[in-house]
Amino acid sequence: MMLADGPRRFSELKRAIGGVSQRMLTLTLRGLERDGLVTRTITPTIPPRVDYELTGLGQSLRRPVEALGAWVFEHLPEIHRARAAFDSRAEENR
Amino acid sequence: MMLADGPRRFSELKRAIGGVSQRMLTLTLRGLERDGLVTRTITPTIPPRVDYELTGLGQSLRRPVEALGAWVFEHLPEIHRARAAFDSRAEENR
Repeated sequence: MMLADGPRRFSELKRAIGGVSQRMLTLTLRGLERDGLVTRTITPTIPPRVDYELTGLGQSLRRPVEALGAWVFEHLPEIHRARAAFDSRAEENR
Repeated sequence: MMLADGPRRFSELKRAIGGVSQRMLTLTLRGLERDGLVTRTITPTIPPRVDYELTGLGQSLRRPVEALGAWVFEHLPEIHRARAAFDSRAEENR
């Protein structure tokens, strides 16, 4: 959803998505481009500028993905409680 | 969504999700259990029977996940076309 508000450069995406490797971000963007969700525009400046932008298809995916994200935010406390309980049971059974 | 219609045994899930390895299914189910989305019930028969079932939290995740699945089915033709075009461009640039 980093591209929801318009085109972004590779370096901007890498900074915004903290902890992603150059290789993983490259592969992910190539996969999104191949699936028709993102376009990749190269501006022949020196150094060349590469911008990524959501296509119409990509924009249409925002709603279901945002709904999933909203579900996670809403239920994060329950998930954390469940993990704590699971881990303590696992500890007891050691 | 294999558990949407009620509890299922490990072996049923493995058969239903063709191509998943024993290890991957075990790890995935353990992760879902840890996150509080699935319960794991062991019936001490011989051999023991292990049933997995969606919790209330798991049931609440159905809607956003089904919406994402519906989006994929609806847009699969566009994705396939985009992939074919991407691959032929990649072929040309070799």
